[in-house]
Amino acid sequence: MTPLDLHHLPYGAIGVDESVHLAVRVGDHALDLAAAGAGTPWADALAMPTLNALLDLGPQAWAELRSWLQETLPTGALDQHLVPLADVALHLPLEVRDYVDFYASEHHASNVGAIFRPDGAALTPNWKHLPIGYHGRSSTVVVSGTDVVRPCGQRKGPQDPAPVFGPSVKLDIEAEVGFVVGGSTPVGSRVTVDEAGDHIFGVALFNDWSARDIQAWEYVPLGPFLGKSFASTLAGWITPMAALEAAKIPLPQQDPTPLPYLLGKDLYGLDLRLEVLLNGEVVSRPPYRTMYWSPTQMLAHLTVNGASLSSGDLFASGTTSGVAVDERGSLLELTWNGTEPLTLADGSSRTFLEDGDSVTIRATAPGPDGSVLTLGEVSGTIRPAV
Amino acid sequence: MTPLDLHHLPYGAIGVDESVHLAVRVGDHALDLAAAGAGTPWADALAMPTLNALLDLGPQAWAELRSWLQETLPTGALDQHLVPLADVALHLPLEVRDYVDFYASEHHASNVGAIFRPDGAALTPNWKHLPIGYHGRSSTVVVSGTDVVRPCGQRKGPQDPAPVFGPSVKLDIEAEVGFVVGGSTPVGSRVTVDEAGDHIFGVALFNDWSARDIQAWEYVPLGPFLGKSFASTLAGWITPMAALEAAKIPLPQQDPTPLPYLLGKDLYGLDLRLEVLLNGEVVSRPPYRTMYWSPTQMLAHLTVNGASLSSGDLFASGTTSGVAVDERGSLLELTWNGTEPLTLADGSSRTFLEDGDSVTIRATAPGPDGSVLTLGEVSGTIRPAV
Repeated sequence: MTPLDLHHLPYGAIGVDESVHLAVRVGDHALDLAAAGAGTPWADALAMPTLNALLDLGPQAWAELRSWLQETLPTGALDQHLVPLADVALHLPLEVRDYVDFYASEHHASNVGAIFRPDGAALTPNWKHLPIGYHGRSSTVVVSGTDVVRPCGQRKGPQDPAPVFGPSVKLDIEAEVGFVVGGSTPVGSRVTVDEAGDHIFGVALFNDWSARDIQAWEYVPLGPFLGKSFASTLAGWITPMAALEAAKIPLPQQDPTPLPYLLGKDLYGLDLRLEVLLNGEVVSRPPYRTMYWSPTQMLAHLTVNGASLSSGDLFASGTTSGVAVDERGSLLELTWNGTEPLTLADGSSRTFLEDGDSVTIRATAPGPDGSVLTLGEVSGTIRPAV
Repeated sequence: MTPLDLHHLPYGAIGVDESVHLAVRVGDHALDLAAAGAGTPWADALAMPTLNALLDLGPQAWAELRSWLQETLPTGALDQHLVPLADVALHLPLEVRDYVDFYASEHHASNVGAIFRPDGAALTPNWKHLPIGYHGRSSTVVVSGTDVVRPCGQRKGPQDPAPVFGPSVKLDIEAEVGFVVGGSTPVGSRVTVDEAGDHIFGVALFNDWSARDIQAWEYVPLGPFLGKSFASTLAGWITPMAALEAAKIPLPQQDPTPLPYLLGKDLYGLDLRLEVLLNGEVVSRPPYRTMYWSPTQMLAHLTVNGASLSSGDLFASGTTSGVAVDERGSLLELTWNGTEPLTLADGSSRTFLEDGDSVTIRATAPGPDGSVLTLGEVSGTIRPAV
């Protein structure tokens, strides 16, 4: 195991015989935490099939566990609990409680505005004053590798006299970054920007699959519903925030200055360099560093009305899009709503996803001493509608 | 215990010593199901502090348990487990998984459209084609009797140069009916209108508190978020659908005819007669019979894209408003966004809720043989912002 392996230590859940055990990735092995953690102060939480109990223990326990792993792994005392990654199946590592999706990329929001509301301003008037978000469906968050069935639903083009029903013809991806929340708070309380760090356990790549035709017909006035709720895919390995200190960078300038509840000392962007692969070919390189809002601002906003947090909550950034055409994190933007098809290396072209298409999002981040972390990838393959 | 008591049998959760036990209401008593259910086929589920495990057992178990209660209670064999209602504290009877709020009242949607989008059509073009809905925050669903802290957030009037932050000045109620879901389904599957009945366990009154000023500023383009997520209050007693057969009535005519996936044999309205009380005074009598969409259509729509169900999911109808002014289920409508204040019996007036105000929603429904069921009420009192 290299120093970088010992620095990263992302958390996941693996199949062991007929059960699911928590695990931490150590290079090309997974450490079975249910076994390795027996007798430790975190044994009860580590014996669970999801991270929720560990998330509930809070940041001091997370730090102590991480230190113990970093000290104990090099001694070889845990080697008997290491399993080659090639031999393990990944499971969803948390029971997702409330899931909120934000909309934190200025370039994405501007592109979507220009496509869907061509006669108005690209950004809605509220966009630079608050991190826009909405609740999504937590029970359809699935782990990387899970097939995605093409959803059916209503769609209606502007010229159609009435809506029609059928499989979505505009199935899309959204390249996002998910943040896993730990530490429950009571209803009626608030988490400030500077307290948010105690509740953000880690980061995982996230694909918020979207049916653009279903979404376009349904979303006024109450927002996206069936266009999003059929599936969202989370990477199998969650990188702890503690491993991302070297990836923290200043935010883009926020103008106008946000209201005081969105300010604090702990404001940061993340230099995560995403790649979106369609059937193995890189079609986009969204730079997370361009995101407008800090994760801590998103969490402070989410709770400023007194909304409680639960261990296992998940919030995601919204689609990550840079300013360049080949940095856009959705096919909606990459093909400008299908009007500018992508040509792939095999000569085929795409506007939106076809049955059988596989999408993978991967990312790297700066690690300590000039090293480079590779985040757990998130992938999925489209199956035909049923 | 009367025949009507034995017919109704709503489910709840009560405090017993330091723990929470499931219970069924029998007239003015609560039957402790953890105690009474020992040794029965449902003992494990009945020993849990929430209904989720019972919900997971499905409709045959629900029917068998109900029959057993109806047969056993009159024998007196369970009398030792009856506790006077006055002596019990109610707890939230389910761990809410995904929570979806619909928008199924044509009168409510038309009123809101006329208030917020006066230059457009009152109903959006999609409204009569699909039951519009969105996901809400499940962790802030609280049980009747829980105080509600006035939320803070951003608001911006049309003439304001920039948003301001502070306690909501347009805190409102929404008189709704909630439907509790049982029986999990896999991601990628679909529940039809005629299968939906197997998944709708029961009905509970629901107050979806809303901060109209926060909502108005944030909701374009992704829908309501902090204007709703601070609290939603569920009645403590859930009336099983089996008790509401006599309350089922035909739906209002649906024109245009919905798409085939929204049709089936099991379409119904419910003749629930709601009353909204503000500080003890009835200010509205919303008739649920006027709702446009059947609960079975809402559930079929929710899953038509392959979204899975979990036992403990909750969906709500949206605000119940009749056509008459005094049948409107929100202060937004009753005072036409504050322009027509309500005068209360004590001589005071209201546009929106003031600190200290208490709101109760109660309802009756036709029972068997001309009897009248009284549903469990939902109430809450507004506490000042923190």
